[in-house]
Amino acid sequence: MAIALQEPKNILPVAGIKLATTYCGIRKANADDLVLLEIAEGSSVVASFTRNAFCAAPVLVARDNLDQAIARYLLINAGNANAGTGQEGMQGAKESCDLVARQMGVTAESVLPFSTGVIGEYLPVEKIAAALPLLQSKLQEDNWLAAAKGIMTTDTVAKACSEQLTLDCGTTVTISGISKGAGMICPDMATMLAYIATDAAVEEDCLQAMLAEAVDKSFNSITVDGDTSTNDACVLMATAKAAQQPIRSGDANADRLQQAISKIMQQLAQAIVRDAEGATKFVSIEVSEARDVGECKQLAYTIAHSPLVKTALFASDPNWGRILAAIGRAGLNQLDLSKVNFSLNGVSIVKDGGRDPAYTEEAGAAVMLEEDITISISLGRGTTQHTLWTCDLSYDYVKINAEYRT
Amino acid sequence: MAIALQEPKNILPVAGIKLATTYCGIRKANADDLVLLEIAEGSSVVASFTRNAFCAAPVLVARDNLDQAIARYLLINAGNANAGTGQEGMQGAKESCDLVARQMGVTAESVLPFSTGVIGEYLPVEKIAAALPLLQSKLQEDNWLAAAKGIMTTDTVAKACSEQLTLDCGTTVTISGISKGAGMICPDMATMLAYIATDAAVEEDCLQAMLAEAVDKSFNSITVDGDTSTNDACVLMATAKAAQQPIRSGDANADRLQQAISKIMQQLAQAIVRDAEGATKFVSIEVSEARDVGECKQLAYTIAHSPLVKTALFASDPNWGRILAAIGRAGLNQLDLSKVNFSLNGVSIVKDGGRDPAYTEEAGAAVMLEEDITISISLGRGTTQHTLWTCDLSYDYVKINAEYRT
Repeated sequence: MAIALQEPKNILPVAGIKLATTYCGIRKANADDLVLLEIAEGSSVVASFTRNAFCAAPVLVARDNLDQAIARYLLINAGNANAGTGQEGMQGAKESCDLVARQMGVTAESVLPFSTGVIGEYLPVEKIAAALPLLQSKLQEDNWLAAAKGIMTTDTVAKACSEQLTLDCGTTVTISGISKGAGMICPDMATMLAYIATDAAVEEDCLQAMLAEAVDKSFNSITVDGDTSTNDACVLMATAKAAQQPIRSGDANADRLQQAISKIMQQLAQAIVRDAEGATKFVSIEVSEARDVGECKQLAYTIAHSPLVKTALFASDPNWGRILAAIGRAGLNQLDLSKVNFSLNGVSIVKDGGRDPAYTEEAGAAVMLEEDITISISLGRGTTQHTLWTCDLSYDYVKINAEYRT
Repeated sequence: MAIALQEPKNILPVAGIKLATTYCGIRKANADDLVLLEIAEGSSVVASFTRNAFCAAPVLVARDNLDQAIARYLLINAGNANAGTGQEGMQGAKESCDLVARQMGVTAESVLPFSTGVIGEYLPVEKIAAALPLLQSKLQEDNWLAAAKGIMTTDTVAKACSEQLTLDCGTTVTISGISKGAGMICPDMATMLAYIATDAAVEEDCLQAMLAEAVDKSFNSITVDGDTSTNDACVLMATAKAAQQPIRSGDANADRLQQAISKIMQQLAQAIVRDAEGATKFVSIEVSEARDVGECKQLAYTIAHSPLVKTALFASDPNWGRILAAIGRAGLNQLDLSKVNFSLNGVSIVKDGGRDPAYTEEAGAAVMLEEDITISISLGRGTTQHTLWTCDLSYDYVKINAEYRT
């Protein structure tokens, strides 16, 4: 059950982007499992992919195609990751691109394939082939929410959101995005699957910089279980349909668009954590007074990946000794414990490295009952602050992942 | 329920070591929670402690005392870790040493305190004081098993074992050891609590080298949940009661004693994993054809800490894609995937980086039903081999740790 996460509403179409969704039989459950996204000519498209060395065939093909051409179509299937499938997997991913290319009259290099689902099974390309004519006929601008549903796996709620922004020149631009993911979540330079588009005109290198900045503070700042997927991918598209001069790095508008894109990505990333497998708590880990972002992340991930911290959160037990033990084993260089403070939802627990004399078990127990928990840790040795989002570890996480393939 | 782990039998006394155990009321359950271990004069004593920066007060005091004097008494309590307790915790640990010193007529520096249990609560020193006269009267050579029970927390089975070895000179020496631990297990240069003694005469620097070597291949090669405790400690004692010349580094006997000590420590370390909280599978992760031990451990820990791999093991599901994803995200430098092979209990799954064409789901499902699972991974780029031991992640792990303090 997702934590304070509603079914998305009012997802705005983005001029220059059309989407279509259908069920073609790749996943067992009878729910849409194939999405085609069309990008208008003249768009800028940039993407970020998993750093998992065993990355999936579609990741290899998409990365390669993106180097050769501007993407015109994204083909996304759920229910099969086409990972760990060797040469046969590569062939399946390439064939999918060829099929879309023939159907839509473009080159194979302008098609990017994406897959998510079970690892180690071969992609049934013939099912994709059979579904393409229907997908072509269904392409529409107003299909974002259907597409968000079509890429879900163990997700219980679709993830989508929109923003509008009026640029300095008076033009209003729209940004919409979708994502999926609930388990095997610890993105590294990318995410599970996420697709964000704007009708703004943005030069490609500027768009690439925006993607890197936004991913770092959103998808690369969440974790469910520390397991980086083989299929993570995040695509950012700018269709240039809005009536404005292309935005370049350094423009005043670049900054504002960056912030709007970052906001969309943060919402999509947090939605993944709120819908994490079995999660009952949404946990923000704020590390402050640190030397740099690296040590903020190192510490926050250590806490976020501790099964003992996660089970205490599930139990609403203010067992802060487990957080303290995690701080102690995080490997921060020359940490002066006497400067470490931490609090739970504002209740001070550790002060100057020891138990805060004012702390009471009752106060700790009261805040731990809340659904949203913020663990704030200050290290007293710098000015950097960074926040990571994660969730607890429940019986249901074990159940969902023990029964995943049955 | 422990995995193929029997109550220890035939634990041999070690000349020069006496032990006593009682219940003094530190833990809630009415089971022994205080152990006193007496070491004969003339012994060599070495120890290894946690690297957790937030290490407990008794660890700080024991480390300091060991630098100043040869240990004559170990005082070990269960039910309270005396960690995260600041100055008051330090005072409690020191007072405990003073109490033992006065009772037994030695200096405070020759007493080493050890604590295990809940973090963040103050040690009730008055309960220890009240129990010391009784402990003194109960000191006996034949109390190893009682002591193993007296240091248990969430353990379900006591951990103890013995070895005998006849040295080149014809003298037979005995080694006995006990340990505890079931959760918060990812030792770093040490272990949960473990105490090993031999009646052999061994020079201190030689004994120190034996400890380092044995710990590396035993307690530092296990993990339950990746959480390094604040209280880990391992003590190795040599009482010199056997009739032989002291063993020095480089002696033929040093090698043989080293192997016997390593064997004892491996049994004690594996017993911790077999009794891990909620565990239903005992898992060996063998990494071979690696460049060095460092990359073996890096890869093995990544797999061992993956909640997705652990829940698949719990479900007896040969979901090998999760192992593949873990190998891919382990961060091994310039890994050539086409040389990676892996198997489960001898069933080849991935060959030359892709699914082994001969692999069948039926064969995978059959081996996964076994209680002892060996995951063998060869990297094809070196000659180093190392094995790590871990367990699965079950509903009961979550239950035990969600309810730990209630």
